[in-house]
Amino acid sequence: MAVVSNEKMSAKQIITCAAYAMGRRVADVELNDVHEVLKDQNQFVWIALHEPSEETLERVQQEFGLHDLAIEDAHSAHQRPKIELYGDSIFVVLRTAQVNQQHIDFGETHFFVGDNYIVTVRHKSSVSYANVRSMCEHSPHLLSKGQGFALYAVMDFIVDQYFPVVHELEMELEAIEDNIFKDKPSRETTQQIYQLKRDLLEVKRAVSPLVEVCNRLTRFEIKCISEETRPYFRDVYDHVVRINEMVENTRELLNTALEANFSLISISQNDVSKKFAGWAAIIAVPTMVAGFYGMNFRFMPEIEWEYGFYAVILLTVAACILLYYFFKRSGWL
Amino acid sequence: MAVVSNEKMSAKQIITCAAYAMGRRVADVELNDVHEVLKDQNQFVWIALHEPSEETLERVQQEFGLHDLAIEDAHSAHQRPKIELYGDSIFVVLRTAQVNQQHIDFGETHFFVGDNYIVTVRHKSSVSYANVRSMCEHSPHLLSKGQGFALYAVMDFIVDQYFPVVHELEMELEAIEDNIFKDKPSRETTQQIYQLKRDLLEVKRAVSPLVEVCNRLTRFEIKCISEETRPYFRDVYDHVVRINEMVENTRELLNTALEANFSLISISQNDVSKKFAGWAAIIAVPTMVAGFYGMNFRFMPEIEWEYGFYAVILLTVAACILLYYFFKRSGWL
Amino acid sequence: MAVVSNEKMSAKQIITCAAYAMGRRVADVELNDVHEVLKDQNQFVWIALHEPSEETLERVQQEFGLHDLAIEDAHSAHQRPKIELYGDSIFVVLRTAQVNQQHIDFGETHFFVGDNYIVTVRHKSSVSYANVRSMCEHSPHLLSKGQGFALYAVMDFIVDQYFPVVHELEMELEAIEDNIFKDKPSRETTQQIYQLKRDLLEVKRAVSPLVEVCNRLTRFEIKCISEETRPYFRDVYDHVVRINEMVENTRELLNTALEANFSLISISQNDVSKKFAGWAAIIAVPTMVAGFYGMNFRFMPEIEWEYGFYAVILLTVAACILLYYFFKRSGWL
Amino acid sequence: MAVVSNEKMSAKQIITCAAYAMGRRVADVELNDVHEVLKDQNQFVWIALHEPSEETLERVQQEFGLHDLAIEDAHSAHQRPKIELYGDSIFVVLRTAQVNQQHIDFGETHFFVGDNYIVTVRHKSSVSYANVRSMCEHSPHLLSKGQGFALYAVMDFIVDQYFPVVHELEMELEAIEDNIFKDKPSRETTQQIYQLKRDLLEVKRAVSPLVEVCNRLTRFEIKCISEETRPYFRDVYDHVVRINEMVENTRELLNTALEANFSLISISQNDVSKKFAGWAAIIAVPTMVAGFYGMNFRFMPEIEWEYGFYAVILLTVAACILLYYFFKRSGWL
Amino acid sequence: MAVVSNEKMSAKQIITCAAYAMGRRVADVELNDVHEVLKDQNQFVWIALHEPSEETLERVQQEFGLHDLAIEDAHSAHQRPKIELYGDSIFVVLRTAQVNQQHIDFGETHFFVGDNYIVTVRHKSSVSYANVRSMCEHSPHLLSKGQGFALYAVMDFIVDQYFPVVHELEMELEAIEDNIFKDKPSRETTQQIYQLKRDLLEVKRAVSPLVEVCNRLTRFEIKCISEETRPYFRDVYDHVVRINEMVENTRELLNTALEANFSLISISQNDVSKKFAGWAAIIAVPTMVAGFYGMNFRFMPEIEWEYGFYAVILLTVAACILLYYFFKRSGWL
Repeated sequence: MAVVSNEKMSAKQIITCAAYAMGRRVADVELNDVHEVLKDQNQFVWIALHEPSEETLERVQQEFGLHDLAIEDAHSAHQRPKIELYGDSIFVVLRTAQVNQQHIDFGETHFFVGDNYIVTVRHKSSVSYANVRSMCEHSPHLLSKGQGFALYAVMDFIVDQYFPVVHELEMELEAIEDNIFKDKPSRETTQQIYQLKRDLLEVKRAVSPLVEVCNRLTRFEIKCISEETRPYFRDVYDHVVRINEMVENTRELLNTALEANFSLISISQNDVSKKFAGWAAIIAVPTMVAGFYGMNFRFMPEIEWEYGFYAVILLTVAACILLYYFFKRSGWL
Repeated sequence: MAVVSNEKMSAKQIITCAAYAMGRRVADVELNDVHEVLKDQNQFVWIALHEPSEETLERVQQEFGLHDLAIEDAHSAHQRPKIELYGDSIFVVLRTAQVNQQHIDFGETHFFVGDNYIVTVRHKSSVSYANVRSMCEHSPHLLSKGQGFALYAVMDFIVDQYFPVVHELEMELEAIEDNIFKDKPSRETTQQIYQLKRDLLEVKRAVSPLVEVCNRLTRFEIKCISEETRPYFRDVYDHVVRINEMVENTRELLNTALEANFSLISISQNDVSKKFAGWAAIIAVPTMVAGFYGMNFRFMPEIEWEYGFYAVILLTVAACILLYYFFKRSGWL
Repeated sequence: MAVVSNEKMSAKQIITCAAYAMGRRVADVELNDVHEVLKDQNQFVWIALHEPSEETLERVQQEFGLHDLAIEDAHSAHQRPKIELYGDSIFVVLRTAQVNQQHIDFGETHFFVGDNYIVTVRHKSSVSYANVRSMCEHSPHLLSKGQGFALYAVMDFIVDQYFPVVHELEMELEAIEDNIFKDKPSRETTQQIYQLKRDLLEVKRAVSPLVEVCNRLTRFEIKCISEETRPYFRDVYDHVVRINEMVENTRELLNTALEANFSLISISQNDVSKKFAGWAAIIAVPTMVAGFYGMNFRFMPEIEWEYGFYAVILLTVAACILLYYFFKRSGWL
Repeated sequence: MAVVSNEKMSAKQIITCAAYAMGRRVADVELNDVHEVLKDQNQFVWIALHEPSEETLERVQQEFGLHDLAIEDAHSAHQRPKIELYGDSIFVVLRTAQVNQQHIDFGETHFFVGDNYIVTVRHKSSVSYANVRSMCEHSPHLLSKGQGFALYAVMDFIVDQYFPVVHELEMELEAIEDNIFKDKPSRETTQQIYQLKRDLLEVKRAVSPLVEVCNRLTRFEIKCISEETRPYFRDVYDHVVRINEMVENTRELLNTALEANFSLISISQNDVSKKFAGWAAIIAVPTMVAGFYGMNFRFMPEIEWEYGFYAVILLTVAACILLYYFFKRSGWL
Repeated sequence: MAVVSNEKMSAKQIITCAAYAMGRRVADVELNDVHEVLKDQNQFVWIALHEPSEETLERVQQEFGLHDLAIEDAHSAHQRPKIELYGDSIFVVLRTAQVNQQHIDFGETHFFVGDNYIVTVRHKSSVSYANVRSMCEHSPHLLSKGQGFALYAVMDFIVDQYFPVVHELEMELEAIEDNIFKDKPSRETTQQIYQLKRDLLEVKRAVSPLVEVCNRLTRFEIKCISEETRPYFRDVYDHVVRINEMVENTRELLNTALEANFSLISISQNDVSKKFAGWAAIIAVPTMVAGFYGMNFRFMPEIEWEYGFYAVILLTVAACILLYYFFKRSGWL
């Protein structure tokens, strides 16, 4: 019965389990038979898992003799991107990201790479690596470089997926710029800035440890990564550095945008004050005049004059118009 | 009599004092007999102290031949997290933290680790390591790696306790975000931001030196830490780096929150000014009209007119309503 | 027919393809014959391409045996400045910049340098390197140092083009300073500051990786760069460091300018408030007086007095003038 | 005569000049006879100077063969903390600090340490090292480690004096916090913040170079510092790092306090505006009503009505009270 | 004729050209005869140039066999401070600074130092090194250490000239502090802050690369700098580090001053608002009363009362005084 449940389980969790020789897929293997295949030094096994159960991971551990801690890490998907050496094998953790309806979905992928095997463990991330695998299978002269190249192919795919993510964030920054410089200052813009900062930090946290990971894959002597695949990891390194730079750039611009936004709010405040002061001054004139002629003195010459009323109205209106032009010219209205 | 007082003292200060062989607890030992046990190279002694008196520490010093400075440090519990080598033995200082009713309680734990002994000294921190010890005793295949593994087990426990602490701080940040973006700007929010900053700095001070401590435990040749326990310290290292990153992240978001808060206060100020200006303008109309018809000119046609009074009231109200809609549309009211 | 299309293609894409010996141009070579020329160790080939097609690049790759990844990079022109070693040959990526009607145009140039060849690949950047080449040809004693000197000559030319760019940015900063300290605070100035920050970041991104590139050309043993050309790359290094410093300086001043701008907006706001308060106080006097004498009490002595009206006017005007001087002196008007 | 003046001079400038053997003071020595004592390799000489004249320093230089530059430095007391090696001897500069009536007094102490001598030169700092010396003399088993331990004892004393200084600064920060969060924003608080920043920078400048000084004393091979005193300097190093951290912490909190202060000033400004607007609205009601009934229309029904006056007063007061509650509820009053 | 023009030229450009042996000036040499003097290994030549023409530099280049690039740099005086090794000779660039009527004048000095020569090239900087030279000549025991000591003497002189410059900047900061905390916020203060920031950046740019220059002179093996002059360069290094620290300190305080200034502007704005609100409230009372008794109701008891007028005035004045004290006590006036 254990076998049956295993079969069922495999259907979901084990995406692929195949042996490759000379860069070509030579056989699909049962997980339980992997140790047989591993005896042939000219082959390597590529296993792709998706959110494996503890049981599956245990079987993988037994087949390849992996370290307890690596398996523990592979099960609980909340790791920082990192690379660890356990004897001759390495354990790599990457975080994946995709844009999904203006929202960034993060996932996680783990790699166990050894002498003649590579195991990829996908968590949460929705994009399958089936395409990467088939692309590799279409260029056997590259895949013949071994499991190191398979590792590169998937890493390159994961890293390249960050470019649209960062592009999306740059677009959001531009939208914020438009809001700041074209529209009025608003609570929404401030909140957008804050949200973008949050997203940038999240992406940075996922990408920046990759610099060190790629660096180690490029420089240090790791037995299971063949010498000739090194330039490929340097290429991934370049991409990672570029993504980091783009994120850093966007972050610095965002900080400036926040400050510019703040300056503009103050200028806007200034404008309100000036406008208010200007209109208050204009309205003060007729009010003062009206008060003046509302006094109850017995002897006020104009009051007796027949056209006094009209004369006063005319003068008042003239004064208001004069004030209006004066404020208009000095930019208060 | 000295022995009696020692017995009494031990009851409180010495939590455990046991010998382990092959990963299994083989005997409870008297502190005074420890040097006997140490002669057997296949055993190691694990002593757990809690706020020991100077006397107890002196006895421990004599039993293991510890350095004066380390004992002095272990007595006065105000150290930075650090690791120090004294010949073949090491002295490690860690700071512990727990959330206690929305408040962070900090404690301190010191370790003396030598060839075949480990002494843990707890200060202030209220959580006992009894559970860790019993968990270790339940997996003898791990504990058989020696006192290095015991050190790892307690360190891992201490570091893992920082996750809920940091989580609590992240929750507080979210509460602050809600206050900022949903409610009105208030003095309380500003004070909360300041308090959170204080807590973050405190946690950072406790955690960030751990990066160096773990690093040294992982990399350098330390005789009393067996080679095979190194990957375990690398695991602790990973956790420490992640906690550091979370704190750093929260801190950067908090800074942005402080600035966003500030922007929103200014926008709010702007709104008050606009509202005031708008209503002042609306009220200025009837005031001006009233002043106008309060003038004492002898010849003012409308005044004599029977319906003048009503006509003026109507016109004034109409003007006010017009102004109201005008300001409403331009967002001043 | 392939040859014909090649000829046509060359006309546009292949600017030069010449062999140099002893620092002098000895022959123009067909791209297809380059491998013949390369056999003579005393010569080196200099090929200049401009936005080459995939076909041309493939031919170049075959002639010189270049690495797939470098060719891929050379085709898609969106690289960070970098230097990469592939065996004995190096691949260098630089970003170029020119001021074009107050706008910075960025381009990209790639170099393949090997044992006795140098290939330059220009992308987007509009300035041709024909002048650099002819200048090199006019000082054969320098060009005789080999392809390393050719690389230096073009790099030096590219780096020197950043000086007018940075100068332009410094001019813009000065214009912003004038706006801030001489004119009124305005939205335009804030937007200019933001735009300048954007440009500075762009230039910095293009220049700062050059420090590392030049450093490696100066220090490490690279076979295809002769020992005696090293001081020249140190010279380029110096220029790059200076440009970086100028950009950094401008950026720091810009940040201070942003804050100064903000202070001045607040002071300006302060001035508006004071002016408004001052005038409001002056206008409040006659308004109060008018209201006072507008009361309907039966017994108000001045009202009956014949010159009351004039006396009141005089006193009111006097009070206003007094207030005006008072506010003038205390800086509120 | 030179001898006489020397005697007189010594009385003030030369605090102690004694020879130590096996950790015990064996003799008081004349400065001129020191070279005699130095011949005995089992002894070391400890000389304590206080603001020595050029003459005294010259004699010291001759007795121990010190370098010109070190003597020059020791005379002009405006050095950065540093350690310098001159052949087998070292020259150490420290800055001292004490709290003196809420004011920090800085001083300077220089050390010349060689094969079997230590010279301490005190400048300005008012606390004498007599206590340190006598404490050393009371634990001969420690002082028998040589002049290296004497250096440690004084350095430890100097560094420990920074703790009350930093504590004082932390107290000041707490006072500022109380001012900010409990009282109204004031000019004094802003000035206090600035002053505290100044003090923090001063302390940081005095302490931070000590990290490097202690590091070199701990790590590098310095002949005149015996191997067994190294852990002691590591202890000083720990204290220095902790002081640095405390200063850094206080500085970061101070920056946040400055920003929080600023937010609260703005909120306070907001409150003033709201209060003013609220009361202005309440006062606008009776003003408008009074103006209304001050109009001179011939036909205004209420005016003729006997109780009109009282009815209007009642309605106006009612409207004011209504407005008052409305503003109270929405937090404007 | 060439010789004549050379003579004339020398009069201006070549300040000194002398040979030194055993620390004493032994002969004045013609530039054309220098190669003769260089043959004697016990002598060194010291040449001082001031803004030399291309011709003079070419002659110097020929006499000492200097590198093209160094000569090119020495001619165009816009270099960063740096040190470069060309074989056995070194080329050093320093920037000089002096205070000149509250203005900082920057200059540049270049050094060529080789086996037995030192050439100093002054640009723009107005202070001559004649004094340094004569001081060196007065202490032959030091100058006998060779051209390395001559280099030190001039460098020390140049670096020491930065102290008054930095002192001037510190004075300016204090003036700004006085403006901020004692006077009213003003545009001038903001502009002064900006100007000081500019000056600080300029000085920092001139001084900070010196750390690296001095470091290399102290640490690396440079043949033409004798071992025994190393401590002297360490002394210059110390001064440079101190100047850097002072600049950095002033810069950090300036940033805090900018923010404090900003806080005070806001508090000042707050004061204006409060004062305005307070006086507006006081003036509102008589205005309301006047309006009240200006109503035209037929039945208003007080109006008929003979002393109504005086009673109302009294009450109004009393209310105003009451309000005044109320606002005074709560700090609004």
